[in-house]
Amino acid sequence: MTLPRIAVDAMGGDEGVQTMVSGAALARRRHDKFKFLLVGDESRIKAALDAHPNMRGASEILHCEDVVGGDEKPTQALRRAKTTSMGLAVGAVKAGDAGAAVSAGNTGALMAMSKLALRTMPGIDRPALAALLPTLGDNDVIMLDLGANTECDARNLVQFAVMGAAYSRIVTGREEPRVRLLNIGTEELKGTEELQQAASTLRAATGLSLSFDGFIEADKINRGTCDVVVTDGFSGNIALKAIEGAARFVTDLLRSAFTSSLRSKFGFLVSRPATELLRHHLDPNNHNGAVFLGLNGVVVKSHGSATAAGVANAVDVAARLLENELTQRITADLAELGGTRLRTNGAEGEAA
Amino acid sequence: MTLPRIAVDAMGGDEGVQTMVSGAALARRRHDKFKFLLVGDESRIKAALDAHPNMRGASEILHCEDVVGGDEKPTQALRRAKTTSMGLAVGAVKAGDAGAAVSAGNTGALMAMSKLALRTMPGIDRPALAALLPTLGDNDVIMLDLGANTECDARNLVQFAVMGAAYSRIVTGREEPRVRLLNIGTEELKGTEELQQAASTLRAATGLSLSFDGFIEADKINRGTCDVVVTDGFSGNIALKAIEGAARFVTDLLRSAFTSSLRSKFGFLVSRPATELLRHHLDPNNHNGAVFLGLNGVVVKSHGSATAAGVANAVDVAARLLENELTQRITADLAELGGTRLRTNGAEGEAA
Repeated sequence: MTLPRIAVDAMGGDEGVQTMVSGAALARRRHDKFKFLLVGDESRIKAALDAHPNMRGASEILHCEDVVGGDEKPTQALRRAKTTSMGLAVGAVKAGDAGAAVSAGNTGALMAMSKLALRTMPGIDRPALAALLPTLGDNDVIMLDLGANTECDARNLVQFAVMGAAYSRIVTGREEPRVRLLNIGTEELKGTEELQQAASTLRAATGLSLSFDGFIEADKINRGTCDVVVTDGFSGNIALKAIEGAARFVTDLLRSAFTSSLRSKFGFLVSRPATELLRHHLDPNNHNGAVFLGLNGVVVKSHGSATAAGVANAVDVAARLLENELTQRITADLAELGGTRLRTNGAEGEAA
Repeated sequence: MTLPRIAVDAMGGDEGVQTMVSGAALARRRHDKFKFLLVGDESRIKAALDAHPNMRGASEILHCEDVVGGDEKPTQALRRAKTTSMGLAVGAVKAGDAGAAVSAGNTGALMAMSKLALRTMPGIDRPALAALLPTLGDNDVIMLDLGANTECDARNLVQFAVMGAAYSRIVTGREEPRVRLLNIGTEELKGTEELQQAASTLRAATGLSLSFDGFIEADKINRGTCDVVVTDGFSGNIALKAIEGAARFVTDLLRSAFTSSLRSKFGFLVSRPATELLRHHLDPNNHNGAVFLGLNGVVVKSHGSATAAGVANAVDVAARLLENELTQRITADLAELGGTRLRTNGAEGEAA
């Protein structure tokens, strides 16, 4: 099969063209069959490509000068979808010129542009932002939604479960990824009505390629006992950032503890391989690449401050999702779930 | 002034009478003017008091045999408010026999019993559960609500801000504690309608003894740049548990990294004082004691698995709140806020 190209918004993000191009080149070493469409200022992209001769042959440049600002409102950015590097990268996916777009730019703008250009898949009401988080287990856990939808109904949550499971099958290789709904307790009657309805639909659903294991509390997300954590965008964003902040808090404390005395400093130096391992495990660059699931095409958001290695991971996510035909998998799973049943459950939810 | 007594539910929690009594005795060393009402099985309490002669003289025992179970539903527990150690401890506050109750039992049951017996303060619609979290700064940060109210309107959030600030003044000594609303972004238009309305009320309010600094994202909670984080009970519970889980995740990683090689093990031993410092800082026992704010009386929830040192911290919280007359402070602040204005804002919120 001919693999679709990956469009890279070379201008988005805080680190500039060099980092985006180097990241794509790094990713290409792991996926050497992929070709790229690099969108942005031609002369700067060409200069960046000088350091990556192999990448040059695999890349086409789509020139543009306009860039979406980091603080720009999505509605404003939308108006410049046809002139900005972000808009053109997403547009290439819409036109079939590329299978996936990767951008390190403004998340809200990327979401708005992607929704408008690519539309949601049949059977999906709203796309969701999904990311991989480190765990104590063998695989990363997928959490979604992380902020695309502030409020979600039961039907949205069930669709997120199906999409997250399709993604997790690619990541973990499990036939039936273990899915849980994020809640403030594990008892059946805990949490909001939306959560209880979503749980009851997932419990009753048969033929889904996932194992629904009920609710999970936020302190268990990283334990490695669950493959997909489903939540609304508000709670998901709170949980994600709380985890990031707490991890940074602990490592900051650790650093100051280790430098508090000469003895500690010495101990720190001796055990540096251990602390390096910790740093590697917690480095957000190693988990970079959040995916907008549920669109007719793959869109990956790289962290704005990601390094070249981080960008490479985001491009890697795009490549793996294309190789494994994520979009087609989700379509098949949705057919399995049965549009009718899901719709009925959603309607009941709204009536209640 | 005569200090009110502290009622201790000696039976609640996983660790038993000995731990509760020893914890109270430890706390009494820091607050030697307090007297206690120990509620539970008389013979077991007496046996526990044998190790603490000073405590014996300062304690009265209220005998009962019935205990609220850890998994018991609040509605079930409520029926036994007059016979259980938890119910009798709260009842003592209602009857004026004690100024505060401390329990390590079932949180939901304690909340339900406290609400029913003590009622909410004039001007407060719903009580909130508030806890202290460690920060990189000089003081702990107070976060509320942590699970008492799954959904909250703008009016609830504003009241939480006032209550949290009153608590923070006691903890930090600041005249105007820095208060923020937990949100998924710091821009004015981010988040739910409830959050935006609460922010607009707090921005407009004058004469409040707090400084409202807008929104805060969950990764900044522990930075020490904010004294009170206000949120609904669902998001607050998610944030709190995500922080606890992530801190445990990092320390688990660290432990396995440190024991991964002989060299690391040696380094770990040498730097043990540093890692002990970290452990001390992150030990939940050192931040034990969540408070139900907004009731006519002080009720403190100790963690079910707290050690005697942890229970001592929870009793310490009760003692400090009594010494500083928290309830009276909140009443005064609410008067300052002006019941009318707050009511108007709330009504607008509900109409919108």
